[in-house]
Amino acid sequence: MSPLIAEFLGTALLVLLGNGAVANVLLARTKGKGADLIVIVWGWAMAVFVAVYVTASSSGAHLNPVVTVSLAIAGKFAWSKVAGYVAAQMLGGMAGAFVVWLAYRQHFSATEDADIKLACFCTAPAIRSVVHNVLTEMICTFVLILGVLYLASPQVGLGALDALPVGLLVLGIGISLGGATGYAMSPARDLAPRIMHALLPIPGKRNSDWRYSWIPVAGPLAGGALASLLYLHIH
Amino acid sequence: MSPLIAEFLGTALLVLLGNGAVANVLLARTKGKGADLIVIVWGWAMAVFVAVYVTASSSGAHLNPVVTVSLAIAGKFAWSKVAGYVAAQMLGGMAGAFVVWLAYRQHFSATEDADIKLACFCTAPAIRSVVHNVLTEMICTFVLILGVLYLASPQVGLGALDALPVGLLVLGIGISLGGATGYAMSPARDLAPRIMHALLPIPGKRNSDWRYSWIPVAGPLAGGALASLLYLHIH
Amino acid sequence: MSPLIAEFLGTALLVLLGNGAVANVLLARTKGKGADLIVIVWGWAMAVFVAVYVTASSSGAHLNPVVTVSLAIAGKFAWSKVAGYVAAQMLGGMAGAFVVWLAYRQHFSATEDADIKLACFCTAPAIRSVVHNVLTEMICTFVLILGVLYLASPQVGLGALDALPVGLLVLGIGISLGGATGYAMSPARDLAPRIMHALLPIPGKRNSDWRYSWIPVAGPLAGGALASLLYLHIH
Amino acid sequence: MSPLIAEFLGTALLVLLGNGAVANVLLARTKGKGADLIVIVWGWAMAVFVAVYVTASSSGAHLNPVVTVSLAIAGKFAWSKVAGYVAAQMLGGMAGAFVVWLAYRQHFSATEDADIKLACFCTAPAIRSVVHNVLTEMICTFVLILGVLYLASPQVGLGALDALPVGLLVLGIGISLGGATGYAMSPARDLAPRIMHALLPIPGKRNSDWRYSWIPVAGPLAGGALASLLYLHIH
Repeated sequence: MSPLIAEFLGTALLVLLGNGAVANVLLARTKGKGADLIVIVWGWAMAVFVAVYVTASSSGAHLNPVVTVSLAIAGKFAWSKVAGYVAAQMLGGMAGAFVVWLAYRQHFSATEDADIKLACFCTAPAIRSVVHNVLTEMICTFVLILGVLYLASPQVGLGALDALPVGLLVLGIGISLGGATGYAMSPARDLAPRIMHALLPIPGKRNSDWRYSWIPVAGPLAGGALASLLYLHIH
Repeated sequence: MSPLIAEFLGTALLVLLGNGAVANVLLARTKGKGADLIVIVWGWAMAVFVAVYVTASSSGAHLNPVVTVSLAIAGKFAWSKVAGYVAAQMLGGMAGAFVVWLAYRQHFSATEDADIKLACFCTAPAIRSVVHNVLTEMICTFVLILGVLYLASPQVGLGALDALPVGLLVLGIGISLGGATGYAMSPARDLAPRIMHALLPIPGKRNSDWRYSWIPVAGPLAGGALASLLYLHIH
Repeated sequence: MSPLIAEFLGTALLVLLGNGAVANVLLARTKGKGADLIVIVWGWAMAVFVAVYVTASSSGAHLNPVVTVSLAIAGKFAWSKVAGYVAAQMLGGMAGAFVVWLAYRQHFSATEDADIKLACFCTAPAIRSVVHNVLTEMICTFVLILGVLYLASPQVGLGALDALPVGLLVLGIGISLGGATGYAMSPARDLAPRIMHALLPIPGKRNSDWRYSWIPVAGPLAGGALASLLYLHIH
Repeated sequence: MSPLIAEFLGTALLVLLGNGAVANVLLARTKGKGADLIVIVWGWAMAVFVAVYVTASSSGAHLNPVVTVSLAIAGKFAWSKVAGYVAAQMLGGMAGAFVVWLAYRQHFSATEDADIKLACFCTAPAIRSVVHNVLTEMICTFVLILGVLYLASPQVGLGALDALPVGLLVLGIGISLGGATGYAMSPARDLAPRIMHALLPIPGKRNSDWRYSWIPVAGPLAGGALASLLYLHIH
């Protein structure tokens, strides 16, 4: 598999399985309606595990623009390849969000609450505040990138044997630091599906909360950069 | 162990442990009555794990006609062996369903709701619709087979070291894509136990929902074929 | 560590962590009171994992008389050592049950329901019936021993690398087949703590349900023997 | 990474992810408010996993004064290094607690119950009693240290491959023995965050329960020492 196809396919799988878990727990009349938080955090963890497992040998399984940029900052990935990786990830995130909608189309129709429909695409803060939401997303992503840097092989990125550790890392972050902003940590998981929410003809949908949309981009980028700088300093 | 005995025994274990989890959570007066969805998805994940672990070295642990056919399409398994594998899997699925009934026989009697009794054998959609149900089963199985193809060794199928990854793959699919149709993904897990439901003298049972029965066969076959074709194209 | 000390210590750890999970979920005023079934099944799974991990290199980590007898039937363990192993396991099970009582002593006092206090020592059927309860315990243990036989190295028993697989096997059995009788599968986990229940000065305790006590011994022994015979036949 | 920086960073990660899980489940208006106990125990397990994974190759990943002292008693760690390790761990625990407060700052403000705010820093017993609380903390930590001693390499401490086993060990202990006192098992996880609770300007906070504060120090030290002595005796 070529690296760009791998990043596209992997990010699509990641968002499909991650947002699929949210849809199963939140949308009306599903078999998972109202299940415990543990289901959602394991859903995202296994989404990461599967996506990394399938694509690690082809592209190093970044699957997140923040991972790509942070690896570049840490000197583990060539800056010249960053733009292509990020484009493939964003398109992959949009594709994954589209397939979640296909798989749960009847349940999107059966759901009345427009906030819930949006939550199957992108994150929203539990309590809205620019300063605190950016800070929490920075902290989440700092932990993610620090973990990834210690897992990643010297150049490219992650290997297949890193799939379970990085999945469990995301399980831990989701449980512990996801309570305030929903641990977006990636534009390909938040902005890309948000764009898809705006494009798709979902009955009874609300606006795509553009006001919040820059926070799960800027916060993660800042947190990832911080982790890379710390890594360069202490490693 | 001969490959056909392995496929029979492994599929029996898979259906026993998977449908056993459903029975524990749904039937009346069990210790697991009303437990969270997380119990069912871990039940199916560990069912796959145990069944693959025990049989991988003997048969490649397909344990699902769709896996066998998809591996054949992808050129990883001889077409001449497909019929024997599928027959062993279907008989295994029936045997596993029979043992679930033995283990929970008193609880089948104590349960009034005939839909719940059927659910301990085979899947039913949350919202009935031929088009959408086929589509969702296609998507589930596409992800399953894509994952299996990247795990499977060049010829035969899965090895013992693939048992945990493939179990976790099924955990992820169940959490994320199981909410609409119950992620059947296999005639040996759905049609075979459905036949057993029709044959067994279960008190107060309903019909075996034959109207729906072809969907968890056709959808998975189509989804698996699609994954194999994509794999041949991009690998 | 000598093999007999390992079997004693390992079985004590197994019963301590397993019955501790039951106590945490069932006893009054604990932090885990009323938690989901998933907590109990992971508790037993990790009990097995930890106990096997610590003792595998010393004794082969049988930790259950049924495992020892079944390995002997399958020709993987010397009959001459069986009595010593079983004695160490039974004493270990009693010791583990004693420490659960120490750790939760105030909560045993705070609990009014005498059935719950007994449940922190040994199993009871959801619906009482000699035939069905024996049958369910046979089925549980058949799956356990079949799994263990495929994991076990040619002679002694389990190795440290088998600790996680066998823990996950017990997770799967608990979820899927524990709903009717509580998956005792071992006299060291059921009869030994039951004896301790009879001996300890627990305020407000009921009788130790001796009428049922032979079922989680005979059923598991029969199921394990069946698995060993099948293994010898098809392996 | 130098060993002391590793112990500082690792303990900070451990307390951040562990207490973060508590905050997510207990504080007002979080996405995890009221989730099942399984979320908290997996949160601490993954906290240990991530922290050990990142720091094992640098310091042996003790991340707990009781681990350091017990390894020294068992002859696996030089007494001359104990003071530095413990200081780094205590500072790390304080730093981790500080970042939990940052990440959930709005939710600390939104929470009325002062006991819940304190619970996001340190443990409290379910039923208060010096004798029983010390005993339960001894038993928890005895199991932890016994497990760690059998995992630890001859000299330094834990390796990266021990990260998952030790995380699962803590999962098991939390489920089984955490119900009475909250399985503190470490001054760096209990006393250090408690000090931070006293220092931080948390609106509406209660006193830091200093009366109880010595128990999650003394109990764990005694339990760990006992495990080391048993290990030296039987190994």
